[in-house]
Amino acid sequence: MPKLSQKAVDMPASPIRKLVPYAEQAYAKGLKVYHLNIGQPDIATPETAINAMKNADIKVLEYSHSAGFASYRNKLAAYYQKTGINVNAEDIIITTGGSEALVFGFMTTCNPGDEIIIPEPFYANYNGFAVMAGMDVVPVRATIENGFALPPVEEIEQKITAKTKAIVICNPGNPTGYLYSKEELEQLAAIVKKHDIFLFADEVYREFCYDGAVPHSVMNLKGIEENVIMIDSVSKRYSMCGARIGAVISKNKEVMAGVMKFAQARLSPPTIEQIGAEAALETPQSYFDEVIAEYVERRNVLVDGLNSIPGVFCPKPSGAFYCVAKFPVDDSDKFCQWLLEEFQYEGQTVMMAPATGFYSTKGAGKNEARLAYVLNKEALEKAVECLRAAIEQYPGRVEVSEDSKNLSSVG
Amino acid sequence: MPKLSQKAVDMPASPIRKLVPYAEQAYAKGLKVYHLNIGQPDIATPETAINAMKNADIKVLEYSHSAGFASYRNKLAAYYQKTGINVNAEDIIITTGGSEALVFGFMTTCNPGDEIIIPEPFYANYNGFAVMAGMDVVPVRATIENGFALPPVEEIEQKITAKTKAIVICNPGNPTGYLYSKEELEQLAAIVKKHDIFLFADEVYREFCYDGAVPHSVMNLKGIEENVIMIDSVSKRYSMCGARIGAVISKNKEVMAGVMKFAQARLSPPTIEQIGAEAALETPQSYFDEVIAEYVERRNVLVDGLNSIPGVFCPKPSGAFYCVAKFPVDDSDKFCQWLLEEFQYEGQTVMMAPATGFYSTKGAGKNEARLAYVLNKEALEKAVECLRAAIEQYPGRVEVSEDSKNLSSVG
Repeated sequence: MPKLSQKAVDMPASPIRKLVPYAEQAYAKGLKVYHLNIGQPDIATPETAINAMKNADIKVLEYSHSAGFASYRNKLAAYYQKTGINVNAEDIIITTGGSEALVFGFMTTCNPGDEIIIPEPFYANYNGFAVMAGMDVVPVRATIENGFALPPVEEIEQKITAKTKAIVICNPGNPTGYLYSKEELEQLAAIVKKHDIFLFADEVYREFCYDGAVPHSVMNLKGIEENVIMIDSVSKRYSMCGARIGAVISKNKEVMAGVMKFAQARLSPPTIEQIGAEAALETPQSYFDEVIAEYVERRNVLVDGLNSIPGVFCPKPSGAFYCVAKFPVDDSDKFCQWLLEEFQYEGQTVMMAPATGFYSTKGAGKNEARLAYVLNKEALEKAVECLRAAIEQYPGRVEVSEDSKNLSSVG
Repeated sequence: MPKLSQKAVDMPASPIRKLVPYAEQAYAKGLKVYHLNIGQPDIATPETAINAMKNADIKVLEYSHSAGFASYRNKLAAYYQKTGINVNAEDIIITTGGSEALVFGFMTTCNPGDEIIIPEPFYANYNGFAVMAGMDVVPVRATIENGFALPPVEEIEQKITAKTKAIVICNPGNPTGYLYSKEELEQLAAIVKKHDIFLFADEVYREFCYDGAVPHSVMNLKGIEENVIMIDSVSKRYSMCGARIGAVISKNKEVMAGVMKFAQARLSPPTIEQIGAEAALETPQSYFDEVIAEYVERRNVLVDGLNSIPGVFCPKPSGAFYCVAKFPVDDSDKFCQWLLEEFQYEGQTVMMAPATGFYSTKGAGKNEARLAYVLNKEALEKAVECLRAAIEQYPGRVEVSEDSKNLSSVG
């Protein structure tokens, strides 16, 4: 049998999905499992999007333009303008999800062996997309104690080599929920300008900012217009994860011409789901107001609940619908597996994503886990109860001084 | 501004789309343009597929499984079994179109610098997918005089080096319409076995075989089960190009595990269009009988019409809905552009895809063009009339001896 490629070996298995067999064991035992491990919201997709797909009068399900329907690109540009983000229709190429947008963006800008700097913890699939493009990920450490704020500029600059081609951020962040301030983005812009590298920003959680926090888009940063590539997606914004509609956005004409060649090779993004995404742009503000109010309540239930458990610390995120919490345990991979394999509390247990999969540095995040607050408040309350009981019972529990906990009450 | 990657430079621009600006000039002059340049059929999508998407009761448009819905994979396996092709559900990973299937397949099996052998002319986007995976395409020449039959085995074997990782075929072929015989496939199997390389077969046109010709799947080749990777798609079979639903199929568990890691990184194929693809499997045979009867008539109108033009030769294809024709012209790129830019016949003209884009060898196919018979018979008759007049008027016309034409009446 011929050998597989090195990429097939290097591709990471999904850290979020590797516990699935243990979850299946838990179901088999009749346990109720609270799934805080995945970013699949239970929020209803806007009816305007669903109805547009149902009512589309299609006789022949044809390809769209490789860059996506012109009508969609025009309306999407109008959405950005209305949101105060400087984007025109010609700056947009519609992709099959944010995933494809990242792959095309990476392949257009980076050669095999080039380095991209990413503050860790970061969305685990960035590793996979980097493997696909043959790039090396260079992490720079954000800490839970600082609420996952941007690491100091000097630390980022220390990582820059002749091979550095880009910095990649997710804002608001998955898995941290951290929202970069305008000042932090301007610090990044200064580095990007000084070293003339690209800045990728995955802004798919833009709509989910809480407590009056305002998201700032990299598209509005001055002086680095040619360096910025924004990644977007309808997946989370309209709870349309299954639509697989995203976008690459840049003012850099050469980048867009490069991305377009990759887009042409795969012909087009999905037609019907583009129709849904276009219609979703007419979702009324009231939908977001309701969704955001819901997420704020969920976040408070989950994060306040976690922080009320002795030895647990979770910075309160300002955006997205994830948080990373630190647990008083020896190894969160083992803890997460134990929750499914050996633990139960009144017939229930919790599934979380061990944070190690979100760090590129070996051993980092060993006592952290990501939790997605994509379930309703009652479920989250029960999940917190489960975790409280679990921490008491877990054989690998370690003592944490209250000092180190207090240190962390930032963010 | 930072430099783009070498891949962005190497990615070929679509040879099919590069004439679009000239077509737009033709529209601006008020000309009717017969589009024989693209493989977008005008055939209606089966109602069963359209209705399933319309009637899907979706509240939250969620991700599917990364390998596609289990229900779809099960029914798809049943379709293959019914078609006499040895495939089980666990041999299938659903992808976003045949395009993604090829990219995942190539990335799973080939390292940068590895070589893949492809009989040319071949589907132009294979070049793009090879660039994405960093592979080198090594063409082996099929000739119009032989109706684009498989090149002699010795010629294929001569191309095999230590870097050769796979042979790639499209069967029935785009752009040639050639259907490989069982004997030809067994010849390929022998080479694949002898050199222990992979065999990729793009079988998306399987349903379109004419005049009683029977397609043979590589999945049924004996002794190379671990080497075979089949690519499939609903795009052409059910006229669902815009659905972007395809599949990677292999009995090789390691290959499938590798592909699965790429599939997990991009989360899932589109949900609603998968529902449509699953329902499309219930399309009655009468739909295909009608569609095939229609394509046979179209093929006859186009191919017989082309062969009736002095100096033009077109082997009659047994499958798919393309043909490659040889024209008595100096340069078919120039000829195709001239048709749009300077020619008209009673207010009409024809758009074709110059064949050079389907050859990897520089200069090959210089007097050939691909025509897709995706328009109705009346339109095809008029297109032939246009081409007859065009050949008479074209300033770059070259004389062709009737001898060389007769030589070619094979296939």
